[in-house]
Amino acid sequence: MPAGTPLDPERILAATEQILRRHGPAKATVVDVARSLGVSHAAVYKHFGSKQALREAVTRRWLDKSRDELAVIAGDERIPPPRRLRVWLHAVLAGKQAKIREDPELFDAYGVLAAAHSIVAEDHVADLLAQLERIIAAGAVDGGFTTTDPAATARTVYLATARFHHVAHAGDWLRPGVDDDLDAVCTLLLAGLRAMPGAASDPTDHKSRRE
Amino acid sequence: MPAGTPLDPERILAATEQILRRHGPAKATVVDVARSLGVSHAAVYKHFGSKQALREAVTRRWLDKSRDELAVIAGDERIPPPRRLRVWLHAVLAGKQAKIREDPELFDAYGVLAAAHSIVAEDHVADLLAQLERIIAAGAVDGGFTTTDPAATARTVYLATARFHHVAHAGDWLRPGVDDDLDAVCTLLLAGLRAMPGAASDPTDHKSRRE
Repeated sequence: MPAGTPLDPERILAATEQILRRHGPAKATVVDVARSLGVSHAAVYKHFGSKQALREAVTRRWLDKSRDELAVIAGDERIPPPRRLRVWLHAVLAGKQAKIREDPELFDAYGVLAAAHSIVAEDHVADLLAQLERIIAAGAVDGGFTTTDPAATARTVYLATARFHHVAHAGDWLRPGVDDDLDAVCTLLLAGLRAMPGAASDPTDHKSRRE
Repeated sequence: MPAGTPLDPERILAATEQILRRHGPAKATVVDVARSLGVSHAAVYKHFGSKQALREAVTRRWLDKSRDELAVIAGDERIPPPRRLRVWLHAVLAGKQAKIREDPELFDAYGVLAAAHSIVAEDHVADLLAQLERIIAAGAVDGGFTTTDPAATARTVYLATARFHHVAHAGDWLRPGVDDDLDAVCTLLLAGLRAMPGAASDPTDHKSRRE
């Protein structure tokens, strides 16, 4: 890092990523970050008020990059909505698989935040849900999806695919067969999206679980 | 515990459950179990060769009880298969919610085993998958499910409901709205089970995720 560069948030975040990669989220400290930049830790704290704030900012930057890549798929109107949904869900999984392989320390840092129900993790989920809603709304217009409430349906699809995006399952994502498993879930969900009763429920089974 | 009762495996397992409830899985020891029975730890090891074997046996007994309760629903031919699937999935969740509330230490002990990919946890999953397959096979006969491979479809439904049965999500199961979330997923999956293409795939989206 050139010594004359001013200490802006971007430089601090880039240095923090390197420190997280080198030491892992459990051991990385603000002092390590400051030392790697040749500044005092007080100078770092001027931009990020706490270790937690710094960790959140670096994780947010990293997640936003992934969100922006996925948004390209979610908004690609050349792909018919049913296929777009499948491609998008596979891209979510593929992105996480790549991170586990290539950037495991930062992936762990995100896992720590997700487990703590950090606002960063919550915001990321909200971003992904908005993309999913966009695809499902498109499918309701010209993809044969029967939903009349794309936001609620997006949430349901998100819940039904937790196995493939929730960090608690990360340990299974590099196992053989995971992509085929997701494909099978996609096929079932897509069939459901085309056949699901809209506002009205099916009296033969719905809401009759309490016997 | 009456002092004259012979030391059989059942007595040891009942005592272990009490010790696990009192001390939690991290602190409970075979010495605690032996002391509560008024015997030497060698006497316990005669029946269970290690602390791990004892913990697995007590967890297995506890899970088998839950499996047997669920089997009553899975085999209840008076309930139409689509509704039976919904009732069964809600019963799986309700059983786990009850355990978290009423028996948190044993629930934690199971979580430790599940995370370690213990054979006990794997067997329990296999038991539940067999029940799910039975319901889905019934639905293929007279519930309008289109599947020609109930075992594979059971696995897909299991994957799509991980949010509501995989122990990694246990922290969310007592939150408000969880039952409604499961109900929404059930509605989507049931619609899919009735509409899913059988052996043939849908060329408009299936297997076309690699662009």
